[in-house]
Formats: sequence, C-alpha cells, structure tokens
Amino acid sequence: MNSRVEEPVRTYSYLGPAGTFTEAALAQVPEARGQNWRPVRNVGEALDDVVSGRSDAAMIAIENSVDGGVSTTQDALATMPGLRIVGEYLVPVQFVLVGKPGATLADVSVIAAHPVAYAQCLIWLGQSLPEHAHVPSSSNVTAALDMLDGVGGADAAIAPPGILEHHDLQLLADNIGDNPKAVTRFVLVSRTVAPPSPTGADKTSLIVELPDDHPGALLDMLEQFATRGINLSLLASRPIGDELGRYRFVVDADGHVFDERMADALLGLRRFSPQVVFLGSYPRADHAIVHYPSRYSDDVFVEARDWLRGLISGEPGE
Amino acid sequence: MNSRVEEPVRTYSYLGPAGTFTEAALAQVPEARGQNWRPVRNVGEALDDVVSGRSDAAMIAIENSVDGGVSTTQDALATMPGLRIVGEYLVPVQFVLVGKPGATLADVSVIAAHPVAYAQCLIWLGQSLPEHAHVPSSSNVTAALDMLDGVGGADAAIAPPGILEHHDLQLLADNIGDNPKAVTRFVLVSRTVAPPSPTGADKTSLIVELPDDHPGALLDMLEQFATRGINLSLLASRPIGDELGRYRFVVDADGHVFDERMADALLGLRRFSPQVVFLGSYPRADHAIVHYPSRYSDDVFVEARDWLRGLISGEPGE
Amino acid sequence: MNSRVEEPVRTYSYLGPAGTFTEAALAQVPEARGQNWRPVRNVGEALDDVVSGRSDAAMIAIENSVDGGVSTTQDALATMPGLRIVGEYLVPVQFVLVGKPGATLADVSVIAAHPVAYAQCLIWLGQSLPEHAHVPSSSNVTAALDMLDGVGGADAAIAPPGILEHHDLQLLADNIGDNPKAVTRFVLVSRTVAPPSPTGADKTSLIVELPDDHPGALLDMLEQFATRGINLSLLASRPIGDELGRYRFVVDADGHVFDERMADALLGLRRFSPQVVFLGSYPRADHAIVHYPSRYSDDVFVEARDWLRGLISGEPGE
Amino acid sequence: MNSRVEEPVRTYSYLGPAGTFTEAALAQVPEARGQNWRPVRNVGEALDDVVSGRSDAAMIAIENSVDGGVSTTQDALATMPGLRIVGEYLVPVQFVLVGKPGATLADVSVIAAHPVAYAQCLIWLGQSLPEHAHVPSSSNVTAALDMLDGVGGADAAIAPPGILEHHDLQLLADNIGDNPKAVTRFVLVSRTVAPPSPTGADKTSLIVELPDDHPGALLDMLEQFATRGINLSLLASRPIGDELGRYRFVVDADGHVFDERMADALLGLRRFSPQVVFLGSYPRADHAIVHYPSRYSDDVFVEARDWLRGLISGEPGE
Repeated sequence: MNSRVEEPVRTYSYLGPAGTFTEAALAQVPEARGQNWRPVRNVGEALDDVVSGRSDAAMIAIENSVDGGVSTTQDALATMPGLRIVGEYLVPVQFVLVGKPGATLADVSVIAAHPVAYAQCLIWLGQSLPEHAHVPSSSNVTAALDMLDGVGGADAAIAPPGILEHHDLQLLADNIGDNPKAVTRFVLVSRTVAPPSPTGADKTSLIVELPDDHPGALLDMLEQFATRGINLSLLASRPIGDELGRYRFVVDADGHVFDERMADALLGLRRFSPQVVFLGSYPRADHAIVHYPSRYSDDVFVEARDWLRGLISGEPGE
Repeated sequence: MNSRVEEPVRTYSYLGPAGTFTEAALAQVPEARGQNWRPVRNVGEALDDVVSGRSDAAMIAIENSVDGGVSTTQDALATMPGLRIVGEYLVPVQFVLVGKPGATLADVSVIAAHPVAYAQCLIWLGQSLPEHAHVPSSSNVTAALDMLDGVGGADAAIAPPGILEHHDLQLLADNIGDNPKAVTRFVLVSRTVAPPSPTGADKTSLIVELPDDHPGALLDMLEQFATRGINLSLLASRPIGDELGRYRFVVDADGHVFDERMADALLGLRRFSPQVVFLGSYPRADHAIVHYPSRYSDDVFVEARDWLRGLISGEPGE
Repeated sequence: MNSRVEEPVRTYSYLGPAGTFTEAALAQVPEARGQNWRPVRNVGEALDDVVSGRSDAAMIAIENSVDGGVSTTQDALATMPGLRIVGEYLVPVQFVLVGKPGATLADVSVIAAHPVAYAQCLIWLGQSLPEHAHVPSSSNVTAALDMLDGVGGADAAIAPPGILEHHDLQLLADNIGDNPKAVTRFVLVSRTVAPPSPTGADKTSLIVELPDDHPGALLDMLEQFATRGINLSLLASRPIGDELGRYRFVVDADGHVFDERMADALLGLRRFSPQVVFLGSYPRADHAIVHYPSRYSDDVFVEARDWLRGLISGEPGE
Repeated sequence: MNSRVEEPVRTYSYLGPAGTFTEAALAQVPEARGQNWRPVRNVGEALDDVVSGRSDAAMIAIENSVDGGVSTTQDALATMPGLRIVGEYLVPVQFVLVGKPGATLADVSVIAAHPVAYAQCLIWLGQSLPEHAHVPSSSNVTAALDMLDGVGGADAAIAPPGILEHHDLQLLADNIGDNPKAVTRFVLVSRTVAPPSPTGADKTSLIVELPDDHPGALLDMLEQFATRGINLSLLASRPIGDELGRYRFVVDADGHVFDERMADALLGLRRFSPQVVFLGSYPRADHAIVHYPSRYSDDVFVEARDWLRGLISGEPGE
C-alpha cells in the first residue's frame, strides 16, 4: 500500500509547436518543469484554456523590443475577465534563414515568416535578398515546417535558431535580425489569484480607460503615478474599438500593489477612471530593484495616517 | 437647598476696548452671550490667554478684504502649538471720522487712526483732507479715546460707527472707507479639540511649509488639492523668518477634514511637506455650500477602497 | 500648332492589388483621378517610391479603429526622413467570406486572411466556424486570389466586399466583421513640402522622443499641448527598438502648424525633446472643425507679443 | 567763459527723516550720491513724486525677512501705472531701545515704535519688559523724535542704531531684534523706462491676476514658470480689494525679460491672465547668478525657432 500523496500535474498552455520563443519562455519557469505543456495556435486559445480551467496558466508574448506591444495579447487581457499576470520572462530574439536540405541562398525567392519576425529582419533582407516575396505564417516554427512541406510556396523561412535541433533544415544565414539586442517579453497568466509577495523588484500591470476626451484626461491619469513617485516602464494605447479616437491605455508601473504608494495610486486611478483592470503585480524579469524617492516609502504613508488620525481625534496638528 | 447645577462661566478674549470690530465679531457667537468677555491689547495676548487657560477661546482678526491677511495672526497660528480654529465670522467694515464735541471738518489737521483703518480711507482723505498728518493708534477705539483725552496731538480720529453709542464724539464724516463692501474676517480660536461636525459649508485651514526651494515645490503642493477637486479660498505666503526667500503658506481649503477628499489631500500634504499645521475644519461664515465634482464624493473613495481590498485578496480586478 | 501645355502624369503608390481598402482610399483623392496608380506590396515599398521619386505620393494605412496603429507605417514615418503627410482619408471596413465558385459555408475548414482582417472577424468566426484554421496572407485581396489559385491550402478567404466585382468568387457570408462601424484611417504621403493651407479642420502629426526615462517626462510632453489648449486625437507609443522600455510617441494634435498655439507648442516640444519629427499639418478626413478655448486664438498670441515688445522698449507694462 | 556742461541734479524720494533704514538703502545707490534726497512720509507720497515728476526715483521698502511683504508698497505698485523697478537693495535690520538722556530701562513703561519694528522685537520685549504698552509710530525715526518731544506719551522708542549719531538719546538696550539676520529688501522705482541690461544675476517682478476662481488657475500660472525652468523667489497674494477671496499675486522670478525663457513665460502669462503688470527686470541685490537647466538657454530657443521656420517652409522636419 502506497501512502504517498500525488501532486496533481499542472498544465501550461503556450504558442506552439515546440521550438517557438514562447516555449523558450516557458522553459524559464521552474514550477513548469516536468508538468504538462499544451501547445496552442494563438493567444486567444491560450487564455481560453486558463479561463475555462483546461490549463493552470498560459505563457504569452506581450511585447517585443523592436515591434512593440503584441496587440492581440493586450486586447485580450483588457477584455477577458478573470485573468492575472503572475510572472514575466525575457527571451532574446535571434533569427536564422532556413531552407530545404541542399538549398542555397541564391535559390531563395519566396520567404515564409511570421509577420513580427519578418519585420525584424527587414534590413538584412533588403541587403541580401532585395527581390524576395513574403508569405506570412502563423508562427515562427510553422513557417519553416510549411516550407518543408511545400505549403504556401516558400523556398525559405525565417525561424528561431533552436529549430535546427528539431528538424532537418538547411541553415542559409544566421543572425539575420536587424537588432542583435532584440528581446521579447512574455508573461505567465493564471486565473485571478492574490498577487505574489513583493520582491522589491516588481511591476504592476494595468489597463486604464480615460473618463472622457478632454485635453487633460491623460495628464490627470499620469499624475496619479508621478505624484507618488512611480515610474512607468510602459504606456501603450489601444483602441477601445467602438470608434476611431477612443483608446484605453496599457500601463506597466514600477512597484507592487502591496507598496503603499502603488496602492494609493490605484485608489486614485479607480476614483478617476471609468474602468481600471488590475492585471497583477509580479516580479520583474530583469530583477531590477525599484528605486523611488524616500518620501514615498511605506513608513511615510503610515506616519501620515497616524498624524491624520491624531488630528481628527483632537490632538495638536503638528 | 438648591440642586441647580451651575454652568461654569466661559471666558472669551478679544481685541478691546469695547466698540472694536473684534467685539462685533464676538457678538455673533451665540455661546458667548452672557459669558465673560476679556479685552486684550493684541493678538499675541489673546492667543496666550487660550494656551495658558486664562480664556476658553479668543476672537482674532485674520484677514481684511482690503488690507489682506493679518500677518501677526497668521504668524502666531503658524508657530504656537495647541490651538485650533473652531469658527469664522465676518464683520462689515465702515468708518467714520470723529472729533471733539463742537469740532468741524475744517478744524482737522492731525488724524489718529489704526494703520489698517487709515489705509482703508486713503481715497476719501486725499480728496477731503489732502493736507492732514497721520498719528497711528493701536486700535480703532483707542484712536478716538486718545484724541478725546488730548493724547498724541490729533484733532480727529477714524473709528467704527458704533463708537458714537459709547462716547460723546462729534461725527465729522461717515462712510469714509474707500470700499463700501469692505469686510474683516475673524476666527474663533480654542485649544486643540476635535473638529466640529461637518455642515456641508466648511473650510479647512492649514499652514504648510514646502520641502525645498525648487521650481516645482509649490506646484506639487497645489496639486495635492487640485487632484482631489478641492478649491482654495486663500493662499498666502508668510516669511518663515530665518532668511529672505523662505516662506510658509497659509491655506484655506473648501471642505472638512471629515470629507474623504480632504482627508486624502491632508495625507498627501503630510507626506510631501516637512511641516503641516492643521488649524481646523469649521463652518464658513458665509454658509456657502461647498460644491465639488461628484467624482470626489465620499462614496467614490469608499468604493475605490473596497475595490482595492478585493483585488489584493485575489478577486477579479474590474 | 498646339500651344496647350501638357500636365505631367502623376504617380501614386498604394498597397495593391486592385480591390484593397487602400485603393478605396486613393479613390477618394480628386487629384489622383486619371493619374498613374502604382500597386506595391508593402508600406516600405510605397514610401521608398516617394523618397526615390518613383512616385509623387503614397497612400498608406496608419490606423484601424479596431486593431490600432499600423506599426510598420508608424515606424517607417518615424525613421525615414524627407516625407510629409498631406491628406487623411477614412475607409469603412466591411468583410465578406468568399470561396471558390460553388462552395458552401459547410465546406470551409481553412481560411486565408490578412492577419489584421482576421483579427476583426474573430467573433463571427468563433460562432460560425469554430473549428477553422487560419492561413495568413499579405493583403486582403491576395488572400482570395491565392485561395482561388489553390495556393496555401485555404478553401475560403476573408476579403473586402468590392472584390466580388473583380473576380469570380462565391459569397459565403457578408458583414462578418465584429464591429459594423470599423474604419481604417489612411494618409497620403508626399516628399517634404510646405503644409497645405489651414482649413479650420486640420490635424498635425508628430513623432516625439522623450528626453529621458524619469517619471515626469511624458507629463512634460503632454503639458506642451494642454497648456496651449490643444487636444490630442492620438497618442501611441512605439519602441525605439534599441532596447526594451525605450519608446517614441506618435501624436496627432488638433490644429495646424500655422495656428499660433500649435506653432508655440511645437517650439516647446522642440526645446524639450531630443527628437521631434514633424509629419505634417493637413485637413482632417472627418472635416470636424477644431474647437478650442478663445484664449488660445491667434489674436491673443499676437496681442501678447505686441505687449511684450512694448514693455521691453519701455512702455508701461499693462 | 565756462564751457562745462552742468549735469542736472536728480531727486530721490525716500521715507524720512534722516536715519531711517530707507535712507541707508538709498546710500547704497552710487548714482544718488551728491544728488537731491527728498524725505517723504509714506510710500504713496514717494511714488506720487515719481509719477508726477517731482522726483526721478523713489526708494521704497518692499519686503522684510521677518514681517513679510510690505503690503502698501505691493498694492501701490499693483495699481499705479507708469512705474518700473530698476534696482534692489538689502539693509540689515538691527534695533536699539532708546530713551531720553538719563533714562534707565527700569523707567520704561510705554514704548513708541513703528509696527513693523515692534513686531520684530517681541521676544526681547516679552522677556525684558513684559508689562510695557505700545504706541505706534509712522517711522522708526519719528518714534524716537516724538518720544524726545513728549508727543504720544512714550518713555522709550525702538529705533535704528544709526539714530544715535544724529540725536541726543540714551541707549537703553541694543540688538533687541528677535532675528539677528533680519534684513529688509528695498527697491528703487523710476518712471517706466526700458529695463537695464541683463547681468546674469537678475530678477523680474510682476503682478498677476488669475483668470477666475477655479481650482487650477494658480497651478496654471505657476506652470508658466516651471515649464520654462524659472524659479520664483517670491510669491505673495494680495487682496484685489473688491471682495473677500479675490487675490492678485506678487511674483519675483529669477532672470531677466531679455532672457528667452523669461520672455516666453511672460507671453504665456499675458495670454493666460486678465492682468499682468510688468514691474521690471533688474539686478539682484545679492548678485547671485541665476542658474537654470541648459535646455532653457537662449540658444535652445533660437534653434527651435529656426527649426519651426524650416518646417513651415517645407524643409524636412527633423
């Protein structure tokens, strides 16, 4: 008889197939090792898995240092309730150009590539293959596999370097990305849970709508942060989608909701905005300690509350 | 045997002698009727009475609509601990020119007057008595009494109209003030007590020092109010006194410390400023209801706190 | 003998082939009628045509009401010198699902679609064809043509309604877009020229970099507009691309550079920012007259300059 | 025959009689040496002399480091047109207590003093002569002379130390001022002239009214300075005088109207405010060089104008 308690297996959704940058991001999650990894075809499917309970968490790309915010991810997080970001991961983005076994660069005229990957190799392509045509693919790995299978008519594909370990492909060129420091930022998303404990190197992600379209509404929103010494590492606008000119804002702010100054800023935002979605407070991938002026430290907030309590009860107001 | 409980007599200090505008202000206080009124010679003495316990409260002038803030009052409130403003009163300021019985305007060459009163009659004096000389007095009533007694060499005095009821004086001219709508604002000051209940028509008085002398410190201070929809009815600067160019600010803000938005602004000020003196929240003399945008109402603050509590505990952040 | 002067033929580049939304935008340009229309495959090619002189102007999509800013366009305008926006055009975005002649909706399993078009039909697709797979295409028209040709393996395509006039396709479903009010905004770009005259209903497009990464830099930038009564209709961030967390901002501001307040705001921006790209002032597609507080009108600026000139020369300063 | 051209004698008004702090300020003006010095009895008379042409300039006290702004001076400058500040001077403020020849401190019960001087000796008086009474005087020298003459009933007077050189008085106590670093700031006022050349250590004095009584009007005014890197050394409010709660602001700003950033701030103020009185740009008494961020230097303004001119004419906007 075996009295050992079995840990239930956890399931993680990610943009597949094996070999994608998303898989590389998931590989950075210690808790995910040895668990069930579920490849999906797009971000919506990944988040649906989480909401429906098919998966415990999903790894999704949220921003690329060259191409910018991943708009489908930002829009999905803005509109799907019940989700929370619990971790952040960075994956360096390198690209190779691959062909079928035996191919040479001179043979290439049609290139399959995910549009984001394609956009990051434009300089190299313009110099090395000025006459090429582009066939878009749904993932960096699919581009190569379809090319191998003859689907789509491409004779080369842009792919992550790791693909060469999984498939029989001809390397035609490596390091073809325009920016050698390119990196993609991923977040791990779970169902709504309490935020993980602060580490001192945290960020807080929010989606904020502005009250109305007057010249100062965005200013007012930003002042909620500035007036508490909080730096923003990301401010992106996304159309709300009902008509041109209406936007919501995706905000990454330095610090954790358990920090007094961040909690106070969230209160200010909530009072100000018709809609604030709290996406989570979680450790930063770069582990950079958040610095802020000492007058925004927790003890200053606590002391001020004590002072206010005293003067309301009739103690001297100094 | 008499079982009646004797109410202890309360003492109120005010700038005397009888007949001053300050006495007129004190006459507006229902609780002061039939109590002990203690005339004093200056604001410092009045506030000392309160701090030392000789008086229960003091009525002091704090601002004149023509001459501006009463600087000795503002400075005393900024530096004497243990005081709190509990009420505000307005007294219309009218002046008469008086002489000895039998005198005529043509006889007047030297005029006794408190400097503030003198400053408010300059237009009339310039037109009617361009050749006069001025002898300053320590109060509006003293000016007339000294003139009657032959002290100081004046042959006329500027005085409040009520003085004619108390003393045998010749009215030489009335309504000689430059501004027929002139008014002086008084405050009733007690030892530190809990603020009176909000009435909806309240103001909050503060003394605030700025953290340092950078271009934006005052801006930052004002934003603590503006960002919570709080209007300021008074902002005056007073030298701290240690060197030129260092000021503290006297602030009257619309609303009561029991209003959520005001409490929140005070917290912001306290965190920001090296020194905030809370002088009190009390009913406005003009009984003007404080209006503010509905997004700064108490329920918005309460709702935001509930929301924050929910998302910290792991509920969906929307 | 014929003295008639021949107008030279003008060339306009646009994302082809015939039938795209971009072509519909170009059809709105009166001056382009009867001229040479040059279909190209992507935005970079279109702008290259202009810079190199192959074309006189290019029509390019810059923003979609559902999908947001067209990042390749924004990035190209930010980094390619010598371009200027001279006009703005709106095209309603409607989609149809088409198949080969004789096909039915029940036959569809693989759908070809440009990724932006695909993203705008997700609701309908999720309800009507939940099991479908997606093959990305490089344009809305190419998707249908490739499907007709059997390239890419799709058995249906998402396309603009106009395509049915040009090609023998089976209409499987119409109005499949998620938002019936969806619209795409296009701009007409020429080489650098003086701005067209103000119409009263103009906008000014800019790319602005922030001086450094302190909490208030974006606030400072926005204040350059707010403090002159200028409303922003667009504020989008785009990564500069050198490292994560560095952004430039795409700004559309209401008004024309020939308006005093806009010229003054541009001066303020230029002094503040390490890099401001002026993309142009041009008539708004919606012809909405720009309203602004009267204190920001041209005559107020002119009067203030006269006043300053007077006081520098020694005239009274009032 | 004498060909020498006679310099016309210049007349300077100052608060007399000889021995006042104002005379000490006038003694700091090199151009005033050997000219005609005209003692007057108050600030209004001094400024009237200038406006009417009786004097070329007037020296007037504008601020005391302990007592604050001299409100009569501030109000006169705000309302009398045709004046301009051309210089600033600082006089250390020390006080002595004097009596009639042969008197001792023990004899003193009534003290004559100008109210501002009296206010600066309260600590010493409270400790050394707690039982004294105060008789106000119109100047620091008049207090002593009246006491000598037996006018006003005082048996001692507070006076500047220099008075002992002019009059036969008994020194009863010296250094009786509460603040050994007390200083009074004076300005030299002429009829409106072009500002003196910048020295790099200048200040600019203004009187500004706010457009209306909304929470942000003062904020908007201060931003005109902050957004151009201009520090304020003085911000004082003065009642406009028509009703309680309406103020104008007295502003001293670091820099000269010939500095681009200051001229630009004045333009912004003028556009914003219903009333701006330019009182002058003049060298600071403390000769402190004005420091400001380099991005507000003149060349940045000039460069921005060149850039704007270029893009309006059709040059590339970068």
